[in-house]
Amino acid sequence: MVIVMKSKATQDQINNVEKLLKDLGLGVHISVGSERTIIGVIGDKRKLANTPLEIMPGVERLVPIVEPFKLVGKTFKPESSIINIKGIEVGGRSLAIIAGPCAVESEEQIMETAIFLKSQGVQFLRGGAYKPRTSPYSFQGLGEEGLKLLAQVRKETGLLIVSEVVSHDSLEKAMEYVDVVQIGARNMQNFDLLQRVGRSKMPVILKRGLSSNIEEWLNAAEYIMSEGNYNIILCERGIRTFETHTRNTLDLSSVPIIKETSHLPIIVDPSHGTGKWNLVTPMARAGIAAGADGLMIEVHPNPQVALSDGNQSLNFQSFSTLMDEIRKIAPILKRELPI
Amino acid sequence: MVIVMKSKATQDQINNVEKLLKDLGLGVHISVGSERTIIGVIGDKRKLANTPLEIMPGVERLVPIVEPFKLVGKTFKPESSIINIKGIEVGGRSLAIIAGPCAVESEEQIMETAIFLKSQGVQFLRGGAYKPRTSPYSFQGLGEEGLKLLAQVRKETGLLIVSEVVSHDSLEKAMEYVDVVQIGARNMQNFDLLQRVGRSKMPVILKRGLSSNIEEWLNAAEYIMSEGNYNIILCERGIRTFETHTRNTLDLSSVPIIKETSHLPIIVDPSHGTGKWNLVTPMARAGIAAGADGLMIEVHPNPQVALSDGNQSLNFQSFSTLMDEIRKIAPILKRELPI
Amino acid sequence: MVIVMKSKATQDQINNVEKLLKDLGLGVHISVGSERTIIGVIGDKRKLANTPLEIMPGVERLVPIVEPFKLVGKTFKPESSIINIKGIEVGGRSLAIIAGPCAVESEEQIMETAIFLKSQGVQFLRGGAYKPRTSPYSFQGLGEEGLKLLAQVRKETGLLIVSEVVSHDSLEKAMEYVDVVQIGARNMQNFDLLQRVGRSKMPVILKRGLSSNIEEWLNAAEYIMSEGNYNIILCERGIRTFETHTRNTLDLSSVPIIKETSHLPIIVDPSHGTGKWNLVTPMARAGIAAGADGLMIEVHPNPQVALSDGNQSLNFQSFSTLMDEIRKIAPILKRELPI
Amino acid sequence: MVIVMKSKATQDQINNVEKLLKDLGLGVHISVGSERTIIGVIGDKRKLANTPLEIMPGVERLVPIVEPFKLVGKTFKPESSIINIKGIEVGGRSLAIIAGPCAVESEEQIMETAIFLKSQGVQFLRGGAYKPRTSPYSFQGLGEEGLKLLAQVRKETGLLIVSEVVSHDSLEKAMEYVDVVQIGARNMQNFDLLQRVGRSKMPVILKRGLSSNIEEWLNAAEYIMSEGNYNIILCERGIRTFETHTRNTLDLSSVPIIKETSHLPIIVDPSHGTGKWNLVTPMARAGIAAGADGLMIEVHPNPQVALSDGNQSLNFQSFSTLMDEIRKIAPILKRELPI
Repeated sequence: MVIVMKSKATQDQINNVEKLLKDLGLGVHISVGSERTIIGVIGDKRKLANTPLEIMPGVERLVPIVEPFKLVGKTFKPESSIINIKGIEVGGRSLAIIAGPCAVESEEQIMETAIFLKSQGVQFLRGGAYKPRTSPYSFQGLGEEGLKLLAQVRKETGLLIVSEVVSHDSLEKAMEYVDVVQIGARNMQNFDLLQRVGRSKMPVILKRGLSSNIEEWLNAAEYIMSEGNYNIILCERGIRTFETHTRNTLDLSSVPIIKETSHLPIIVDPSHGTGKWNLVTPMARAGIAAGADGLMIEVHPNPQVALSDGNQSLNFQSFSTLMDEIRKIAPILKRELPI
Repeated sequence: MVIVMKSKATQDQINNVEKLLKDLGLGVHISVGSERTIIGVIGDKRKLANTPLEIMPGVERLVPIVEPFKLVGKTFKPESSIINIKGIEVGGRSLAIIAGPCAVESEEQIMETAIFLKSQGVQFLRGGAYKPRTSPYSFQGLGEEGLKLLAQVRKETGLLIVSEVVSHDSLEKAMEYVDVVQIGARNMQNFDLLQRVGRSKMPVILKRGLSSNIEEWLNAAEYIMSEGNYNIILCERGIRTFETHTRNTLDLSSVPIIKETSHLPIIVDPSHGTGKWNLVTPMARAGIAAGADGLMIEVHPNPQVALSDGNQSLNFQSFSTLMDEIRKIAPILKRELPI
Repeated sequence: MVIVMKSKATQDQINNVEKLLKDLGLGVHISVGSERTIIGVIGDKRKLANTPLEIMPGVERLVPIVEPFKLVGKTFKPESSIINIKGIEVGGRSLAIIAGPCAVESEEQIMETAIFLKSQGVQFLRGGAYKPRTSPYSFQGLGEEGLKLLAQVRKETGLLIVSEVVSHDSLEKAMEYVDVVQIGARNMQNFDLLQRVGRSKMPVILKRGLSSNIEEWLNAAEYIMSEGNYNIILCERGIRTFETHTRNTLDLSSVPIIKETSHLPIIVDPSHGTGKWNLVTPMARAGIAAGADGLMIEVHPNPQVALSDGNQSLNFQSFSTLMDEIRKIAPILKRELPI
Repeated sequence: MVIVMKSKATQDQINNVEKLLKDLGLGVHISVGSERTIIGVIGDKRKLANTPLEIMPGVERLVPIVEPFKLVGKTFKPESSIINIKGIEVGGRSLAIIAGPCAVESEEQIMETAIFLKSQGVQFLRGGAYKPRTSPYSFQGLGEEGLKLLAQVRKETGLLIVSEVVSHDSLEKAMEYVDVVQIGARNMQNFDLLQRVGRSKMPVILKRGLSSNIEEWLNAAEYIMSEGNYNIILCERGIRTFETHTRNTLDLSSVPIIKETSHLPIIVDPSHGTGKWNLVTPMARAGIAAGADGLMIEVHPNPQVALSDGNQSLNFQSFSTLMDEIRKIAPILKRELPI
């Protein structure tokens, strides 16, 4: 950390800051510039977590030098993490494809989708049982009934199951039935839920919050990992901006940034990231070309009758075409699609 | 709702949409324009909640006409709501002032602050016991111990107590000790928590989410109210924008907009809304001048040693000066400060 | 400036940076931290303007310490500037009120408005002759004809005239007829225009750009001032955010920030800042309460037939009520309204 | 256009709106809903451009149905436009690659770069002679001297020349020396400049404004086209959001949206879109995978000594690697790279 003093800071004020730092057991490096003095702090800056240096007399502002997260960072673990979920690897050479309907609606719907996806080489079936909806009057998901349908599908198809959790209760239920839990954008800073998922040790997909910068996103992952759960997959799903043509603005530059900053795998969700089915295919291609480790795509046998987010779901034919294109792009990035 | 058809929509496509609407029991009004046809839908549009009309062939887009919330809206209840909390009214002629430290740190700190605030005519003491912090390594609050200190202060001073809840567990604890629970910005769309607070019937301050527009904020309140809890106070605390000079951008225009759209009271939190103590006073004045029903202000006996958010806390003297200014502005808006 | 080296930077890389800085005549202060080395640069950092230090091997990032503007800053001139425009002061004890229609439409319209505003104690009449409109098919203003009408109104009423310039040509025309030129939000970084206005020495109102942070805004003012024109009034008029309920989000916290950072006066435009006439009055009150030096308000004798922005214009009665309220708020901030 | 009446609108108010519309020669379609009445307007809505319907008594809001631009839209011209610039086509099967330094610095620098780019199959050399810089104290470009160097390079290499114009004067100069002019993000709504470029008939690259939505961007193109200049290439270069890790947020979803909405070609600039050279390559790949018609990339023989934006420039080796990757991705989208 660097402490920038005001241009008119007195020598007494500088001394006070220096003394405080030394009292906390930190090293101090004072640099007198032409316009103002700056003070470099040496040592574990967490000793400063509870000291509001910014309002000490004479201090103008603080400049953090080291990122605030630790376990999720590349400094801590330089090589990329590969998450192994019952034999399927995420973050390795093979791209992970997670697909399925926004919400589980019925046995027919989910089974028909699963059989199709299996035939396409998809490894993970997604389906929402607990749906966080903006309005209390929208369809809220089938709950445990939905989870049971997903587990049944797994038994019959061998697909691994991904489903969202939104609370302590839904997490406990999901742990009985699914292989990977998902924390959605609206719960990215539900720290209680993050810690519970951390303690659960369940593989988890952590979506980026609508208004979260990359540092906050990695800090959310740090909440999970600091509880001992290392099986984290990040998922870029768009951020909120002024542009209203899309539901969110898919920030694909987060993909190479995460690759530089963290060892965790990152996938892209172009369905929520755009909100329009006809933008899903180009943005899915772009996500893989940007270096993502996989995709999460909404697929529905008949999007026109979907109970949730039909507008952003691909039908079977569009999804199949997309997989063909991804299969061709993957080798250019030294990746491959299963089958 | 209005359905805008594509300029090249066929008569068959228009007929299909018409038939679907009629099958759902809705009225239909077709208007053939010079460039495209639009279809007005008459009746309860919630019948359409689960029908993705947007992807029917020939449909270009849907235009909602009626707002999605109901109980919180002025259409439902035209006169302003006054929330009565153990005899103190929020939303009436008297402005509500909620003040106190970001976090409860010790008995001395909270008692000293409470006695001072009481002397200033403040009605509500705020203090965080469960703190949602960006990093897992920051001070997370004293938990139930903090709530007990708050309850003790209430007993000795008569101040009503406001404290944040972040989960099912913290809500249960808070219900034993506090008078008003607060749902913070990061949990504004934690729908599970919203519903639990709704069922608890506890008076609640609902902060606006960092990336929430006004409609989503009112929908979050609708989640609480649809569970039977009418004691809701909205709190504007800034939204996330590109401007980095402030922690958030305090969107004071939400105050008159809420006044037009909803019957609920709205207060302003300039401490989180700016993140800098020297901006708190001007923005607090501005909030009252914009028509807010009250303020939530961070006050600390010694901001320089605060364990959390000291940078945005007023000391006693600054708070006292602010109260003097608010006391003069209030009558211009036909409001008053207690005492 | 502080240069943060990568955690794995070699001693050679550190030496190279040090050598480069010394070759440029700059002082160097090296601080070896527990995780990485930082290098403080001492001296005029403009010597570094054309050296991309960020991509030197081993460098992680640069942290600016001193703000990039000079003449507009408080460091350069600590006391507030008062702009004197033909005897009327902006930035002093008296609040400046600039009002009038969005666009000059006809002699009757502008004269009727001017006579009314004069009776309210307003000192400046605004009226657009050159209108920057999003669509080429919208009304673009009366051009020089509009300026002539404004000059005529000045002659008959004594009101000072404010009008927007959008190009070299319109600036030359405006210099013949008006007292203050305005640079709109869309031209805030039209550097050619800024420099021409700088050389013109005309008093100028510089609106904040839709996506400009405060530093960029002050840099735009620096463009004008570095050409020798010190008669600059800043105008907050809202920034673009995700919220769509208002045309822009009026960022009133910029008012106290500018007061701390710069010596220039700042006024607030709640008409463009909200885009809705019924939000203008509360936000105008809030702007003054936040400490603004004045207001720019759209007023039209009959907003329902305005050729431009009628939706955000006050009629005479609403404006009169607003002035009454401002007259009462002003003394609380040790300001006053003329007459 | 659809006019939504307030839920309490009286029959008189509805009649008044109806009468006004009919007086303007427009058709009217009234639809009485369960909660409110809506009025469909039939005919050329430009007749309404100067009538602020929104503030007529009883009106709640207006909903536009038809997009405001005309010539640039797909409704006007369904097939994609191919811009032919001295024999080189942009928007056809072959991808357009525009590369070169941010600023022209010297004959050696620009010639060395041009010879390298020519060897890579690049068709267009970019180089700034007039630089819009945030601070007046940064390097502002070589001006006409820079244009002369570009023209000389064209003569020796055959590369076509792209350079930015920022004003009437720089446009006049550029017309003498370059093949394509560029309007930068900060001037996207400099309507005077747009109209002059429109009248010049020069091929033009129109960059998206930092805070411009897609509709405003297309309206800016409409300004150019309505003056008779059809040679427009759009360029996505990132928008301003809360994320600070990148200079801007490159919004690649604009690529498929433009392809659906407009017939104009669109290219992507990942250099300004990210501001960091190590993000340029993944985002360039992503742009092509999203369907862009080409790329604009900053390349410098020695980024470490660049006078402007060295931090975001590729060196020759990185650019060469990128071209190899693009060459492999292109055929998947039925495109190709020259040579």
